Amino acid sequence: MSKIKEQGMKYNLYSWSAQKKINPMVVSKAEGVYFWDEDGKKYYDMSSQLVNSNLGHGHKKLIQAIKDQAEKMAFMGPGYSVDVRSEAAQKIVELSGLEGAKVFFTNAGAEANENAIKMAKAYTGKWKIFSAYRSYHGATFGASMLTGEPRRFIAEPGVPGFIKYDGPYAYRAPKACNFKSEEDVTAFYLELLENQFLYEGPDQIAGIFFETVVGSNGILIPPKGYYEGVRALCDKYNIVMICDEVMAGFYRTGTAFAFHQFNVKPDLVTFAKGATCGYVPLGGVIVSEKIAKIFDEKKMYSGLTYSAHPMGCATTIATLDAYKEENIADNVAQQGKVLAEILDDFEKKHACVGQVRHIGLFSCVELVKSKETREPIVPFNNDAEGLMPKIVGMLKVEGFSTYSHENMILVAPPLNITETELRDAMKIMDKVLDSVDNMIK
Amino acid sequence: MSKIKEQGMKYNLYSWSAQKKINPMVVSKAEGVYFWDEDGKKYYDMSSQLVNSNLGHGHKKLIQAIKDQAEKMAFMGPGYSVDVRSEAAQKIVELSGLEGAKVFFTNAGAEANENAIKMAKAYTGKWKIFSAYRSYHGATFGASMLTGEPRRFIAEPGVPGFIKYDGPYAYRAPKACNFKSEEDVTAFYLELLENQFLYEGPDQIAGIFFETVVGSNGILIPPKGYYEGVRALCDKYNIVMICDEVMAGFYRTGTAFAFHQFNVKPDLVTFAKGATCGYVPLGGVIVSEKIAKIFDEKKMYSGLTYSAHPMGCATTIATLDAYKEENIADNVAQQGKVLAEILDDFEKKHACVGQVRHIGLFSCVELVKSKETREPIVPFNNDAEGLMPKIVGMLKVEGFSTYSHENMILVAPPLNITETELRDAMKIMDKVLDSVDNMIK
Ligand SMILES: Cc1ncc(COP(=O)(O)O)c(C=O)c1O
Ligand SMILES: Cc1ncc(COP(=O)(O)O)c(C=O)c1O
Repeated sequence: MSKIKEQGMKYNLYSWSAQKKINPMVVSKAEGVYFWDEDGKKYYDMSSQLVNSNLGHGHKKLIQAIKDQAEKMAFMGPGYSVDVRSEAAQKIVELSGLEGAKVFFTNAGAEANENAIKMAKAYTGKWKIFSAYRSYHGATFGASMLTGEPRRFIAEPGVPGFIKYDGPYAYRAPKACNFKSEEDVTAFYLELLENQFLYEGPDQIAGIFFETVVGSNGILIPPKGYYEGVRALCDKYNIVMICDEVMAGFYRTGTAFAFHQFNVKPDLVTFAKGATCGYVPLGGVIVSEKIAKIFDEKKMYSGLTYSAHPMGCATTIATLDAYKEENIADNVAQQGKVLAEILDDFEKKHACVGQVRHIGLFSCVELVKSKETREPIVPFNNDAEGLMPKIVGMLKVEGFSTYSHENMILVAPPLNITETELRDAMKIMDKVLDSVDNMIK
Repeated sequence: MSKIKEQGMKYNLYSWSAQKKINPMVVSKAEGVYFWDEDGKKYYDMSSQLVNSNLGHGHKKLIQAIKDQAEKMAFMGPGYSVDVRSEAAQKIVELSGLEGAKVFFTNAGAEANENAIKMAKAYTGKWKIFSAYRSYHGATFGASMLTGEPRRFIAEPGVPGFIKYDGPYAYRAPKACNFKSEEDVTAFYLELLENQFLYEGPDQIAGIFFETVVGSNGILIPPKGYYEGVRALCDKYNIVMICDEVMAGFYRTGTAFAFHQFNVKPDLVTFAKGATCGYVPLGGVIVSEKIAKIFDEKKMYSGLTYSAHPMGCATTIATLDAYKEENIADNVAQQGKVLAEILDDFEKKHACVGQVRHIGLFSCVELVKSKETREPIVPFNNDAEGLMPKIVGMLKVEGFSTYSHENMILVAPPLNITETELRDAMKIMDKVLDSVDNMIK
C-alpha cells in the first residue's frame, strides 16, 4: 500500500462506509474531465465527482480567482459587507431570474436545506414539511429528515412533522396505473399529492421540497405540467415551494437552474456544488422577494461562522462568469443530445437496462433482471452481494469513473466535455453493459 | 451608502438579524490584528472575527498554502485518498494526543457536532444526548438541539431525546449554594449531573456534550476536578464524552486543545474555526480509537460532498505548522497573563463589571447593574432597548471590534497579538467601561 493510502486508512474516516471494506484510490492528478491514480492510470470523471465538478478539474479561471481572493482577503465575518459577498449574491439572484430575491449563503447543500426549512416555517407560521421518497437532501439532522431514502434512518426518531410523498416515477408506479400518456402521469401524481395535503391539513403544511430533477436517486424527471400543478396547489394552500437545486442547478440540465425548464417560479431555491464546482465549499438559499421581505423586520434565525465566505463568493463569481464565457449552456445542449442518443440505444439493445433517463448532461441507467418484470437487478436497500459496486468497479477498471445508487448508474460528466471524450467514455459503458447482460442471462 | 453596502443590503441575507435593523460595515482591508472600513478607519479585531482568525488576517503562510493547493488539486471527492487529506488527519490526531484516533472532516462546526451525535448513538446503541444550558453548538437541526440558549427555539419542536443540564457557572448558581471553595463548586455540579443521569436512565444516554470552555455564552471555565469527575461518570455509565472545541481549540486557551488543560481524554472532539483560521472552511470530529474501531466493520452513516476538502486540508496543515513555528502557545501564555491582569483590574475598578473570566486569550467581561445583587445589565434574552449593541457600538467607534452575548462582552484577539497591541486595545475598553459605569449610576 502506498504511504498516502496507508496514512489515509489510518487517520481518515471515509463517508458512508465500513472502513475495512473500502479501498480508496489515491488520486494524484486531475485535469479537465480526467483524473489519474498513483500508478498513472487515467480515468474519465463521468460523475463530475459528486456531480459538482461542472467545469472539470484544474480550471485556470477558477484557480486564479481563488489565488487572488486569498491574497486580498481570505476571510471576513458574515456580519460585514464585503465586495465579493455582495457581488456573488447579485450574480446568483440574476441567474435565477427571481426578481427581488436575496441569498443566504451556507457552506454546502445540507446546510442550505436546513435553512430553507426554517424559512418556510417562519414565513408561513406552519410546521409540517413535505419531501419526496427517493430523494437525497443531505445528512445533517434537518436535511436527513427531508431525505427520502435509507440514509435518513440513522437520524430517526427525528424531528416531528416531516412527511414523505411519492414524486413522479412512472416506471415504478403501481402497475395498475397503466398510464397511457404523460398527462396521465402528471394527473395521477398531482391527485396523489393534493389528497395527501388534505389528509395532513394544508393549514399545517409550511413547505414542500423537490429535487427539481431527482439526482442520486435516479434522475427522475417530472412529467410535463407537474410543476405547474404543484405551483397551483402551493398557491391554493399557502405552502412554500422549495426546489433543491444542489445537484440539478448550474446548467447540469441545460438551463442555469433546472426549474427554468418547467415554467415555474419556486419560493426558495437551495444550491451548492456547481456554484463553485466544489473548488471552495459554498452553498445557499435563494429567497424569493415575498419571503425575504418578512426578514426586514423579523429576525432571521439563521447563522453560521462561514456564511458568505469570501473565498467561496469569489469562486462563485468566477464560476458563473466561466459558465457564460464558455457557452456551457450550448455545450450541454449539444453533448446532451449525443448522450441521449447513446443512452436510448443502450435501453434498446441491453437486456439489463430497464430504463435510461436523461436531461442535459444529467442521466442514469437503471438496471433490471428482466425488462418484462422490471425487477431491479438488486433488491431495494439490500445489495447484499455487492453487485452494483462490482459493476461500478468493472467500469473503473476500464477507466470510466462514476457511482451507483440502488440499481442505477449515474452518468453526469463535466459540462465542458467534448463530443469525442463523451463518445469514447460511453463506449466503455457499452462494453461493460454487455458483460452485465451476460450476468443476468 | 456605498455601492458595495447597497448591493449587499439588496442581495444578501445577514445572519441572526432583522435586515432593516442592521447596518453592516464594509470591510475593505485586513492585516494582522486589524481591519479597515471603507473610509480607512482601522479596528482592532478583538474577537478574531467569530473567534476563528487565530493567526489574524493576511497570514502569508496560509495564503501560500491556499494558492499552492488550488494549483495542484482544488477538489477531489471524499471517497478518494489524497495526500493533504491523509496528512491533515494525521496532524490533527497527533495534536490531540489521542492515540489511535481518526478524523472525520466536515465543512464547519455545526456539521461536526451533527456527526458526533450520530457517532455517540452508533457506538452505544443508546439514544439520549445531554448538552448544557448556556451553550452554542451550531444552527443546523441536530446542532440546534444541542444548543442551550434561545437560538435553539426556531428548531423546536425538535428531535426527541436531547436533554439539557446545568454546567458549572458558580457566579450565577442559586444563591443558597453559598460555595466556600472551588471543590464545593465541582462537587455541586457533579452531583447535579449524576442525579440527572439517573433520572434520565443511564442505559438510555448515548453521550454528553461540553464546550470544553464555554465560548459565546460567556467563557465559563470548569472548576478543578469537574472534568475528571465527568469522565468517571461517563465510564461508569458507558456514556460518550464529547468535547466541542470548535471555539476553544487550537491554542485559544493556551494548549492545543482546551481539554489538555483538564487532565481528561474525551471520546469525541469536534473542531472547526482555528483549524484553518477560517481562511477556507473546515471542521471535523476526532474519533477516539474505541469508537473509530466500530466503523471498521459497521457502516458509518455520515457523509457530505465536501468532507475532507483538499483546500481545507491544505490550509489546516499550514495552520498547524504556523502555530508551532510561531510559538503560539508561548505567546498565548505571555499575552494571556497581560490580559488577565488588565481584566482583573477592570473587575475591581468598574462598577458595571460583575465578573471577568479568562483563560489564555479567551475571555469575557460580564456586565451587571450592581456588583451586590449581580443583576445582569440586561435581562436574559430580552435586551429590548439594545443596550449591549450600544456598548459594542461605543467600543467600535473607538476602534475596538468585538461582539456581545447576553450581558457579556467577548475579548478574544488573534493569538499572535503583541503586548503593545493588546495593552493599547484594552485601554479603549477601559475608557468605554467608564462610560458604562456612569450609565448604571
Ligand atoms: C440534491 C441534493 N441536495 C443536498 C445535498 C447535500 O449537499 P452537501 O453534501 O453539500 O451537504 C446533495 C448532495 O449530494 C444533493 O444531491
Ligand atoms: C462552540 C461552538 N460550536 C459550534 C459552533 C458552530 O460552528 P459553525 O458556525 O462553524 O457551524 C460554534 C460557532 O460559533 C461554536 O462556537
